[in-house]
This record gives sequence, C-alpha cells and structure tokens, in this order.
Amino acid sequence: MTKWVLSFGDGSAEGRADMKNLLGGKGANLAEMSNLGLPVPPGFTITTEVCTYYYDHDHSYPPELNDQVRAAVARVGELVGAGFGDAANPLLVSVRSGARASMPGMMDTVLNLGLNDETVEGLANSAGGDRRFALDSYRRFIQMYGDVVLRVDHAAFEDILEGVKDTRGVSLDNELSVEDLEQIVSLFKEEVERETGQPFPQDPEAQLWGAIGAVFSSWMNDRARTYRRLHDIPASWGTAVNVQAMVFGNMGETSATGVAFTRDPSTGEKVFFGEYLINAQGEDVVAGIRTPQLLTKASRERSGEDKPSLEEAMPAVFAELERVYQALETHYRDMQDIEFTVQRGKLWMLQTRSGKRTSRAALKIAVDMVDEGLITEAEAILRVEPSSLDQLLHPTLDPEAVRDVIARGLPASPGAASGKIVFTADDAERLAKLGDKVILVREETSPEDIHGMHAAEGILTSRGGMTSHAAVVARGMGRPCVSGAGHIRIDYRKGEMSVLGRVFNAGDVITIDGAAGEVMAGAVATIQPELSGDFGRLMVWADGHRRMKVRANAETPADARTAREFGAEGIGLCRTEHMFFEDDRILAVREMILSDREKGRRAALEKILPMQRQDFVELFGIMTGLPVTIRLLDPPLHEFLPKSDEDIQAVADVMDADPEHMRRRASELHEFNPMLGHRGCRLGISYPEIYEMQARAIFEAVAEVKRDAGETVTPEIMIPLAATRREIDILKALIDRVAAEVAQASGLELHYLVGTMIELPRAALRAGEIAESAAFFSFGTNDLTQTTFGISRDDSASFLDDYIEQGVFEKDPFVSLDRDGVGELVQIAAERGRKTRPDIKLGICGEHGGDPSSIAFCEEVGLDYVSCSPFRVPIARLAAAQAAIREK
Amino acid sequence: MTKWVLSFGDGSAEGRADMKNLLGGKGANLAEMSNLGLPVPPGFTITTEVCTYYYDHDHSYPPELNDQVRAAVARVGELVGAGFGDAANPLLVSVRSGARASMPGMMDTVLNLGLNDETVEGLANSAGGDRRFALDSYRRFIQMYGDVVLRVDHAAFEDILEGVKDTRGVSLDNELSVEDLEQIVSLFKEEVERETGQPFPQDPEAQLWGAIGAVFSSWMNDRARTYRRLHDIPASWGTAVNVQAMVFGNMGETSATGVAFTRDPSTGEKVFFGEYLINAQGEDVVAGIRTPQLLTKASRERSGEDKPSLEEAMPAVFAELERVYQALETHYRDMQDIEFTVQRGKLWMLQTRSGKRTSRAALKIAVDMVDEGLITEAEAILRVEPSSLDQLLHPTLDPEAVRDVIARGLPASPGAASGKIVFTADDAERLAKLGDKVILVREETSPEDIHGMHAAEGILTSRGGMTSHAAVVARGMGRPCVSGAGHIRIDYRKGEMSVLGRVFNAGDVITIDGAAGEVMAGAVATIQPELSGDFGRLMVWADGHRRMKVRANAETPADARTAREFGAEGIGLCRTEHMFFEDDRILAVREMILSDREKGRRAALEKILPMQRQDFVELFGIMTGLPVTIRLLDPPLHEFLPKSDEDIQAVADVMDADPEHMRRRASELHEFNPMLGHRGCRLGISYPEIYEMQARAIFEAVAEVKRDAGETVTPEIMIPLAATRREIDILKALIDRVAAEVAQASGLELHYLVGTMIELPRAALRAGEIAESAAFFSFGTNDLTQTTFGISRDDSASFLDDYIEQGVFEKDPFVSLDRDGVGELVQIAAERGRKTRPDIKLGICGEHGGDPSSIAFCEEVGLDYVSCSPFRVPIARLAAAQAAIREK
Repeated sequence: MTKWVLSFGDGSAEGRADMKNLLGGKGANLAEMSNLGLPVPPGFTITTEVCTYYYDHDHSYPPELNDQVRAAVARVGELVGAGFGDAANPLLVSVRSGARASMPGMMDTVLNLGLNDETVEGLANSAGGDRRFALDSYRRFIQMYGDVVLRVDHAAFEDILEGVKDTRGVSLDNELSVEDLEQIVSLFKEEVERETGQPFPQDPEAQLWGAIGAVFSSWMNDRARTYRRLHDIPASWGTAVNVQAMVFGNMGETSATGVAFTRDPSTGEKVFFGEYLINAQGEDVVAGIRTPQLLTKASRERSGEDKPSLEEAMPAVFAELERVYQALETHYRDMQDIEFTVQRGKLWMLQTRSGKRTSRAALKIAVDMVDEGLITEAEAILRVEPSSLDQLLHPTLDPEAVRDVIARGLPASPGAASGKIVFTADDAERLAKLGDKVILVREETSPEDIHGMHAAEGILTSRGGMTSHAAVVARGMGRPCVSGAGHIRIDYRKGEMSVLGRVFNAGDVITIDGAAGEVMAGAVATIQPELSGDFGRLMVWADGHRRMKVRANAETPADARTAREFGAEGIGLCRTEHMFFEDDRILAVREMILSDREKGRRAALEKILPMQRQDFVELFGIMTGLPVTIRLLDPPLHEFLPKSDEDIQAVADVMDADPEHMRRRASELHEFNPMLGHRGCRLGISYPEIYEMQARAIFEAVAEVKRDAGETVTPEIMIPLAATRREIDILKALIDRVAAEVAQASGLELHYLVGTMIELPRAALRAGEIAESAAFFSFGTNDLTQTTFGISRDDSASFLDDYIEQGVFEKDPFVSLDRDGVGELVQIAAERGRKTRPDIKLGICGEHGGDPSSIAFCEEVGLDYVSCSPFRVPIARLAAAQAAIREK
Repeated sequence: MTKWVLSFGDGSAEGRADMKNLLGGKGANLAEMSNLGLPVPPGFTITTEVCTYYYDHDHSYPPELNDQVRAAVARVGELVGAGFGDAANPLLVSVRSGARASMPGMMDTVLNLGLNDETVEGLANSAGGDRRFALDSYRRFIQMYGDVVLRVDHAAFEDILEGVKDTRGVSLDNELSVEDLEQIVSLFKEEVERETGQPFPQDPEAQLWGAIGAVFSSWMNDRARTYRRLHDIPASWGTAVNVQAMVFGNMGETSATGVAFTRDPSTGEKVFFGEYLINAQGEDVVAGIRTPQLLTKASRERSGEDKPSLEEAMPAVFAELERVYQALETHYRDMQDIEFTVQRGKLWMLQTRSGKRTSRAALKIAVDMVDEGLITEAEAILRVEPSSLDQLLHPTLDPEAVRDVIARGLPASPGAASGKIVFTADDAERLAKLGDKVILVREETSPEDIHGMHAAEGILTSRGGMTSHAAVVARGMGRPCVSGAGHIRIDYRKGEMSVLGRVFNAGDVITIDGAAGEVMAGAVATIQPELSGDFGRLMVWADGHRRMKVRANAETPADARTAREFGAEGIGLCRTEHMFFEDDRILAVREMILSDREKGRRAALEKILPMQRQDFVELFGIMTGLPVTIRLLDPPLHEFLPKSDEDIQAVADVMDADPEHMRRRASELHEFNPMLGHRGCRLGISYPEIYEMQARAIFEAVAEVKRDAGETVTPEIMIPLAATRREIDILKALIDRVAAEVAQASGLELHYLVGTMIELPRAALRAGEIAESAAFFSFGTNDLTQTTFGISRDDSASFLDDYIEQGVFEKDPFVSLDRDGVGELVQIAAERGRKTRPDIKLGICGEHGGDPSSIAFCEEVGLDYVSCSPFRVPIARLAAAQAAIREK
C-alpha cells in the first residue's frame, strides 16, 4: 500500500532531509530535525504524490488517504497528550504547504486548526485559564480559515475587528477585552455564515480536510503559477502538506517566537543573527507591527538597542537555541535559516533550511566553512552561484543613498554609473576626452557607436533586449547598461529625453544601475568593488577543479588586459571587424566597400593593412604565451556604410567619386535579412582580397613579435559562417598561401591553425567532413540559436515576453543555451568532428560561453574551452569548475 | 594483372556497352558495335583507370601499360593487314578521348597518327598511288599533332598554309598541287622544330605515347574543367583513350563521311535523319566549309535540295547503313546519334550513342517506342526529362521570328510574353482592365505587387534571383518572368528604363522569354503550346507508376482550377496571406495591424472574416473531394503596411487616427531581419485573435459548403514556423475551441486535421515531440534551406554566382534540395515523426516540391506527397513516377 503520509516528532521520523521531492523542503527538514532529537512539535507530512494524484484525479484523494491521516492525527494527539476535538484538552494543529523548492508566501497556511466553540474553552484551560488567549486564537483561526479555505473576503473580518476597536476606543489588538473577543468571534462566525450560507465548521476533521484541500488548491493559484514560471519550477513537482501540533509563542511573557540565521546573511560573518518577539505568533514577526528584538547581547549593543536580547531575556532558552543552531549548521554543513517558538519557556523548532544570502556572504561563508573544516573545497565551489560574482566585480550603488528612480529597463550589464547625458557616440567621446563622465543614451546602438560606448561610463537604451547590440557590447566591455527602458522617449533633434512627463536634456546627470535595470535622476553614490582574499581563494580552488579552459572574447588591448587580469587563458574570439570601426580607419574601410572593383578595394586594403597588423602586434604582446583565436571579417559590409551626407561626401572625396554614385552603391548593398546575407566567409569567397589582407596582417604581426620580442605566437585563424567544407578549403588555401609568402619574406617559420565557427545547422550536420579541413571548431551559439530557431535576436523582443509568459520558452534561448535543439546540433557536431579528427579542439564563443547553465552543457558535451566577455571570465571559471565537479 | 587495355574489332570485343565507367561512352559503344558484328574499324580502349592512375602517380602510367598497348596495336595491325611504321603498308590510327559522360569538343583528338616521311609514301601506295591524298593527310597530322601534343600555336600552321595558297594564287585546300603539299609538309616540320627545338617525331610509337599523354592531360584543361562543373561531372571519373585504325572518307568520290540520327531529334518523327559529305573527313561535316548533303531521298525532296542524297548516290552503302541503324536502334532501344565513314564504297561505323533531342521529340519518341513494343511504359517514363515539360506547357517564341535582344537575366519562369512596359502594379491592373497586354517591370516585386503580377502578361525585374519573390510568384501563377536582369536601370520617377544606353518608356512594347532569360525590344511572335495526345498518354502512365501524391500550392480560384486541370490531387499549401492583399481588404488588414490594442484588431478582423470565409467557400467548391491544406497567416505583419502617404492617410481616416501616430506604429513594426522575426505562429501566439478569425472563416466555410452543396470538406489546418511543441499545443487548443463553437452554432459535425510546417532546424530535430500534437508535417524547405544554411534567398544573389563558380554549391540550394544538410534534417524529422505517430502524413510544400531531383529525394525519404506551383504539377507527376520506378 502506498504510504501517502509520513509522521515525525518525539526524536524520530519516517522521513529524512534527502526526501525533499516527496516531502517538500519543510517536511523533509522537520523530519530531519526530529531524527536529530531536536525539539520539534510532532506532526506529519502528506506527500507531494498526493498533490499529483489530486490534480490527475479531478481534485480527489487516494482512497487510503483518509485512514492514514486519521492514524497520523491520532499519533500526534498521543504525543502531545491531547485529542482532536477533545473539549477538555484539544489538539490544535497548523496546516502548511511545503514544495520541493521554497516558494515563500505563495501558498496558503492555516493555524490553530481544531478550535471550535467547545475546544476554545479547553484551550483556555490548558493555557492556565487564559481565556483571552484562547478567544484570540479562535478569532484568528476563523479569520484565517474563512479567508483561505472558505474564500470569505479578508477585508470583511478586518472591518469587524476595526469596528469593535472603534466602539471600544482602543487601537491595538491586545487592548481588547475578553468580552470584545467573544463579540468578535461571534460576528466573525455570522459573517462566514452570511457569505457561505453555512455555519462555520465546528468539526475539527472537516476543518482539517478543508485546510488540506485549500493547500493543494493553492498550488495552482495565480501567484504560485507566476512564481514557478519566474523560478523555473515545474508544476509537476506538486506541494506537500505539513500538519503539525500547534505551539504558541503568544502564551504570555515566557513565550516568544523568532527567526534567525546561523551566520550574517548579508556579510557572511560568523555571528548568530536574528530577531524575536515576546508573546507573539510567527506571523507577527514578519508583519512588522511590533519592532522585534535582537537575539544576541553583542548585536543588541552594536546596534544601540534598548530592549533586551533573547540572550539576556531568556538565557536558558537562548543557550538551548545556541546548541540547536550549532548542531543544525554542523549537521547540514551550511548556513541555516531557522524559525522557532518558545512556549512557556520551552523551545520548539518549526523550520530549518539553507539560508538565502548575498553574493558576498555566499563567498565568505563558503571559504570560511572550508577553513573550519566543515565542507570541502569542491563543496565550497558549488555553494557560490557563478552569476552572482557579477555583483562583486562591478561598482554598485550605495544602499544608503537616496534614489529618484525615473525609469526601469532590463538589467542588461551589471554595475552602476553616473554621468551627463549624451545622445551620440561622438559627443560621448568628445566630452570624455574633456574629462567628463557621460552616460550614452540611445534608442538602440549599432556597431558605429562602439567608440562612444567605450568612452561612456554606462549605456542606456530605450529599445532592445538582454541580447541587443547595446547589451552584448556593454557586457563585453564591462560597461553598465540598462536596455529597453521603454518609457523613455528620445528626441535627438532637440537633444532631450522625456520619461512620463519629466524632461532631461543633454548634460543633465543621471545614474543607471545595470544590475537592477534602474535609471535615476542625478548622481547616486556608488561603492567600488573590493575583491577580497576570499574571492581569490575560491577562484584558485575553482581553477584546480575545472577541466575546461576559459578564454575571453576580446579585441582591444584594454579588453585583452582585463581578460588576462580576470584569469582568461587565451582569447577565444577576436572580432576583427570591431577593429574596423576605429575613427582613423573607418574611412578606408568605407572606401574599400564602396569600390565596385577589386583594384579599388585592394588600394583601400593597403591602407588598412598596417593598422590591422599593429592591432595584432599589440594583442599578441598582451596575450604572450596564450592562444589567440582570430575571426576573419564577419558582419555584412553595409554595417560599415556611411549614412550621413557628410560621411558619404568624405568617402567620395577620398575616392574622387560622385557622392550620388556612392549613395547608389551603398543602396545596392542593402539587404533584406542581413543576418542571413552576404557576410562571414561569403565575403572571403567573393572578395578574397579582404581575407588576404587580414591573413597578411596576422602573419606579419606574428613575424614582428617573433623578431622583436622573441615570442612565438600560434594564432588560431577562424573562418566564420561556413556551411560547407569547400568554403574552408578555398579560404584555407588562401591563408596558407599568404602564410608561405610571409614566411618566405621574413625568413621565419610560422605556426598557426585554421579552424571554423560552427554557427549554422548545416555546419553542425556536416561537421564530419568539415573537420577534415578545420583544425578546430568554435561554436558560435548566437548565430546557431538564431538559425536553429529561425529567430533574429534583434527582433525577438516583440514576442519573447509572450513566449515566456505562455511557457513556449522556459528561458530566453539567447541567454541560456537550448539543450534540446541547439544543444543537439552542438552534440552532433562534436561527435562527428571528433570522429574525423579525434584531437579536434572544441570551444564555444557565443554569449552562452558566459552563462553557467550553458557552461554546464559544454562540460557534458566535453568541449575543451568556453570563451566569454572579459568581465564574465571569473563567472565562467567558477561555473566550469561546478560543472566538472557535478559531472564526476 | 590488371587489364588496362581492352580491344575491339572484327566482330568481337573485350568490352560491352554497360562498361561505360571503365571504357567511357565512346569506347563502350565501339565495343558493343563490334560485338554486334557491325563494321567497326578495329582498335582498343585504354581504360579510365589509367587516367586515375596517371593523376594519382604524378603523370606516369602503370608499368604493364606499355606491353599491353604494344600487343593491342599489333592486333589491330594484324586485323587490317598493316604494320605500325611499316613503310610499305603502314597502320594509321586515330587517338580520341572518351569519358563516361559526353563532353563534346572539350578534350583532344589526333587523327592519321603513324604517318612519317616514310609511311606517307606507303599510304600513297595503298591509296592506289594517290600521293596528293597521302601528303594532305600527313600535313593534317603534323598540324593536329603539333597543336594538340606539341603545343605549337595553331595559327602558325594556318599562316604557312595561307602563305603557300597566296603564292599559288589559289583559295581552296583542294586546289593545292602535290608539290605545294610537299612544301607545306616541309614548312610545317620546320615550324615544329623551331618552336619545340626538336624535329617532328618520326617514330610512330613515340607519336602514339605523345597523343595518349595529350588526351589524358586534356582531362584537366580549363575547358574540360569548366564543362564538368557546369554538368556536374566529377573529376574523379577520368577519361578513356580510344586508339582505332583510321578509315578515310576522303579517298576520292567513292568515299564519304556522315552523321545521322535514327529519328528526327527535333520533332521525334520516325524518319532517318542526317547529312554526309563525299570525299571528306569527319571534321569537315562539322566545320561547315562545304554544305553537306542529305541522307534520304525523301528528305532531299522535302527540302528541295539538288545534290543527291546518299540513298541515291551510293544505294548499296545506304542500304547497309539502313540495316545498321535499325539494328542499333533495336539493340539500344533508343534513338541513336551515329557517325560513319565510307572508304572506297565500304561502310565503317565510328560512333553510336543515344541522341540528344528536344522535349517534344523526347516525348514523341518515348510514346512511339512503347507503341512499337520497343520499350515498356516505365522506360518511356524515364526517357522524358520532367523539367523539359515546362517548355510544352507555356507559349514559346516563334523560332523563325527576328529577335532584338536588349538584355539578359535569369530564366525565372518559363514562357514568352509581349506587352507594354508598366512600372507599377496599379498601372498593370489599370491598363489590363482596358484590354492592354502589359509587362510589369520592377527592380524587384513585393507581396503588394501581386495584383499587378496577375494582371500582367509577364514580369521583368532588374534584381533578385531564381527564387526571388518575383520568380516564385510568377512560377506559381504560370506567368513568364525574367529576373535579375542586372543591366537594366529603372527610373520610376521618369517612367523609363535604360539598358546599356537604350531607353524605353512606359508604354513601349517589349517581349520576354522566361525560359531563356532574354528581354527583346518590340513584339516577337509566339507559338501557343499544343498538348498533344502523347503528353496525355505519358501522364497517365506516370500516374500509374508513382507512389507519392502530387498537390498544388494555390490560393486563388484561378490557380486552384489550373491545378486541378493539370492533375493536382489536392492543395498542399494555401497561403492565406495572399488572400489579404486583395484590393478590397488590404485596408482592413492595415487597420488590424496598426491597432495597438486587441479591441481595434478584433474590429478590423470582423471586417475581414466574411471575405476570408468566402475565399474558402470558393476554394472548397473547386477542390471538391480533394484535401486542402491551409496555412495560417505566416509573413511578418509589416509586409502589409502602407508605405505611401496616401495609403497611410487612408488607414488613418478609417481608424479616425492621427497619421503621425500611424507612421510611428508602422516604424515600430520595422524588423532588422524580418525572415527571422515576428511571423508565422509567433503572430498567432501574440495576437490569437488573428488565427481565431482564420479558423472561424475556415470552419464556417466548411459548414456552408456542407449545408449548401452537401459536400464534406476535411481541411488540413497548418501552423507555420513552429519551433516547439508548445506552440502547436497553444494554437491547436485555439483552433479546437473555434471548431467546437462553429460546430455548435451550425449543428454540423466538423472534420479537420491540425498539423504543422517543418521549416526550422529545431522543429526537424524535435519532430518526435511535435508529432504528439501535429497530425501532419509539411516540409517548408524554402525556409528550412534558409535557416539550415543561414542564407536569405532574397539576399543570396550577391554571392550565389561566386559560390557556384567556385564549386561551393553544386546547384542553387533553393532550387534543388541540399540532400546533405537540409535533407538530413528532413530525414531526421520524418523518422522521429513516424516513430511517435506511425501514420503521420508527410509532404513537402517548398519550391523544391516541383524540382525533379528534390522529388526523387522525397520518394527516397518516403514522403506521402509533394506540393508545387500549379504549372509544375505535370512535372512533379512525371518526376514522382520516375523516382518510384528508380526506387524499385
């Protein structure tokens, strides 16, 4: 017979901490605490399987459940020496939800269940004749049960309560007299009967089934569904129901209730941390009506509080609590978040669970616990959420500072920054050169804005998602960015932005918080990151545990240096086109593009060659001893085109050509779907002279570095957007030829690899033959996601919300790699590539290379490295270590 | 020991006709003719394996080859009673290439080999003392050998020849005296020695090896490589070398040479057809210096020629030739293209092969041969190239008419048409209503031009490829179209187009030939297609042999009717958006799109509903008894947007809105990559009211047809662009709900299927789970090709030529399905789909559905049907039959 109900209490339990899937988090931990011999009010857990059964069977229960619940209730009654419905000595219980993952406040709870017109008197007796307490408990029960189970409007009870208080001329609940409470109980019951057409249920068993049903139903309420969607919790998990003997923190001055953390959840310091209220029930602490008192004398003194700490007020209870919390932390080997109640001087534990903490605290606690011998290094590595490191690596807003939030957008790139508003990249650069701090505000950014993004402290856009150009580039540069702040209207002509009626002009100061997605008027104070020793130590442990290498996507010397500082083990993606947007060379690039003949293009490329060579000389110098993967020109040429009349005239002047002709040529280059257009290696096939120049720049730089610094660089030259082996063959022949020429001219031996991006479904499928020609694959999962889904990430914003809202996507596939679709292609390519060339080097260089869950996938598939923005390198190092540990 | 050389002649041979891979086409057929006992000059074939060996071993031969060639030469000498280098009775041979596939004129040939200063006298003797003939043969040999083997400039020999003729004051070769020829031979030899530094080789064996090497080398010459690329012939096949005893058609008036077809290659008529020249060598017929005479008396009389036919001039030879050609046709069971030589009254056969023929002839010959009992129906089906039917289904240019070709573009949609130039779709419609025939000339077309394309006789665009919008729509409508005529410059404002300096105004008449891709000034006479009985009979046989069904892509009543006439067995793709562009509804569609609220959209959809319902009522009426697959709205909404100020104002008026607001809303809908944007089922998820209206229109039409005509229609509703199962689930629920509502309201039971397009790589990979919800898959291989390759077909024109030129693509993947990449995805989807739902209906509705080689792939994968443009339905029927026959 299926066991639908598991009991706990009195130093033993049928469940255990590792049975969270069956018992929910709360139930499993109550069982575990019972097994540990800690003082837990006895009770039982109705399993999550009942919830599943309930929804699979049209809201009915397994036939055996009734008997099992009845037996469990009886056992609880025996243990506490009371009986359900026993007028003299009534058993009262709480009924609480408890899912596998914590969903605080999302589902329903009923306390004091078992009270009725008779048992309320019994409760008064067992509370030493405290009728006031008993009646207060009864009216709370009716209110809660009426609200949660019987769906009577909460406000109706509040109105009655306030009405009686007004009549009596009192303002606090505890000023009400016994008679007042009797009247309130009576009015509450009338209200229930009026609303439901039924008297308030007096049978405790009926009450219990009502509460159980309400908890199971609440699994599907709107709040819970929204919460699950936001936290990736499947509806199929279900919730358990915990029924537990009531203990009362509100039985007078020797009773109390409190919550605590075994360490400081905000700093991670090893101090017992929490609050309590004398003569109160649990929810009173949360409700914040009375100000809670601190637990320890030290903390009370530090904060200058008057009211006695628990340590001072109830030293024996505190000593017991200290013993319990230390036992719990040692047992669970993690910082715990606990709830307790003191009933007439006796401590009862109501909950324990791993405590939520800030990134900083997570780091400190993990490192401290290793030092304390409580956990291993590997465990410490698993204790820190990699993405949370972001917070530690960027300036943050001073939490004390006043904020005038004017708009919200997406938290596109973490960090906080203040500066003067500028509306163009050129202004950003100009003012930055004059020493001003600026925030670049644009509807959206394009590659032409990169110099301005570099110059700015932060970037704010009114359009675009988490993976818009602005967001991607900002994260790459480590610039804070808020994207898609939709309420902002920008008028470039007037040089102003307005948001819900407030107008800001160029030059006005604003602050953005890229971690929260907030935009504030004026300057808000920020705090600089302090990379404490803990961070460094954890990183060293992570490096010791990971298998995959971590490289960075970087092309500028600044980015490359940052990447090295953050521990990158090479460059996984140097986007050569980014080097083309520099002020001094864009003109030559435009000249190249607008030439309609090879000769004109070659002339322009001659001008670019020395600049590009110098780029590589610098880059190789910074990355000495590490691999550098260079992607040949990738984006559609028209991205580089001049748009303004002025820019067109400038190119026409250099080329001695008619601007009208230039304009026509530019319009010929227009594409309907540039993402699927004439780009990547297609440019290399059509205009071999471009890749030839780039190859020459690379090899000549290699030769120069060898000659001048004696360093041997082995560049990994990467061909973008290949769909066939033949493309690689043609371009590899070209690269080999240029290499031979440079080797001949320089008299040096050159070492290099030629490989390809795998960023098209066809390339993934044909990886077997492509690997015959390519020495390495780098998965370009941005493009691969676009083509596999047929979704342009630049355009996805218009329906992505609907898609997540309606559960089509669990997560934005441009942020977290889609294992089922894109992942299968990666897997196919890895397998087929390795079959042809067992030692093929495999990496990933899409945005996913910095996303922990995608990194875990890369570990599973056995890639050799991940490559991500410089600022995400520490995140990737940690995530790669976690993935390696979990794979074992 | 490998046999590198196979001999033939004297009524037997070591080879056979089915050994083409080893012997090449020519060699295999010479062997076959020998085996048949036909008069073939003896010889031998050096196999294609030697060619492969030659290129694998640095241009050297297998060690055994020398002996084998020597033995074979000796055997030939024995058979003809002559000796290689025998001064008295010399053996002379021809050395010819011969690959597996015919590559006419691409490789080198040497005739008269074996002549030298001594043997030339022996030849004179054996030619009855005709020294003139012998010397002429010798000078021809030196010239040919010098050119082909020794690489002496051809022109040098011509100069010498012309010089001597000038000196002698004669103009024709045959006016030269014996002395003249002696002088020429001497000068030729001097020229060779001057150019090569070596005397002209006198040793026949050295001559032979020189010629063999030249033929093998010519396999890799530029011409041959280009030809192979254009005709998909792999370099690995190699060529064979045929060495054969010379026979001479130029040994006086009883000698002759000729070429013939066993039936008329242009009409297919069963008449012996060909030409000959008395006293001439083979190349003289081809060279066209003398006008050849006809073979039969009947053909001579019919063409009014004076010169006697072979039948009259050499009746005995003709009788022998008649016996031979009939034997060949009966043996090969196909029309043959033969070459023969008559040496002093004796007939020699030099070549036979299947003859090239026009589409019309291919059809007639195939059908006739079935009637003659020569081939089976299945063989007849395989004898006609499906694509060639296109020529038979459209008007063609009168071949007699004079053409003033002004520009060339791509042969985008077959057929010829003349009409006045118009530059806008509206003008096309307006003038067509007035009874004018017009050609719509645009830089490119968009969905808004469809009414104009319908109204026009033909379409001409200056941009876009074979799969551009203009091309696809034109093929769908059966309108002739020339696309991407790049030299045409259109000035819409002036209403003129110019091409290489010539200017044409709106109203000027032009003609386009969509099969040739030509544009001509003025009206050129056309011939209407006559679908003869042969066509109908072949189609009936094809229908009897094919397994796959053939449906059509059609949405208008006209298209649906055409499709049915052409034998479509249902509609495989009804693009509902095409119904939205009609004049009377585009305004309501725009109103819907520009509403930023659901309410506004619903109001507009209410207006569209009755029109769309009427569309379906008509369509169902036409397609009675056949399945109709309806695709819900697919393209990005902005395709429907108003562009001109006038159009924007019109929508603003209807909506009582500010045109400026309309403009802003329209610009919000702009997408960077619309192909990957907010389209397909993404629209259905975001704006469920649109698909709801469409589902309602479909079901109400089903109900109306049922009620009014008593016909039961089972629509197959197709959800476009799904990437996940969840999308189907959400939209299927919506469709089911609407169906239930209409069923309830009408009191009728409704039958329908809900399925999906598989047009994204992810959908193909997840086909297993998608099939849980979808009752059928239709492969949308246009989009699937775009996403698998990451290539937008609208933008591919800019590099497609380079890609085909450089061998990256063998064929345009948008025309012929890429088996390796896209094909694997189709296969994966078919397998996974069937695993989940064994009876799942599988079809294809991309452009590939009308492409024979893609249809063959569909048969291999086991699809249930293909769907194509109405005008391609016969092609698909034939191709499907061929594929089914080949699969057996």
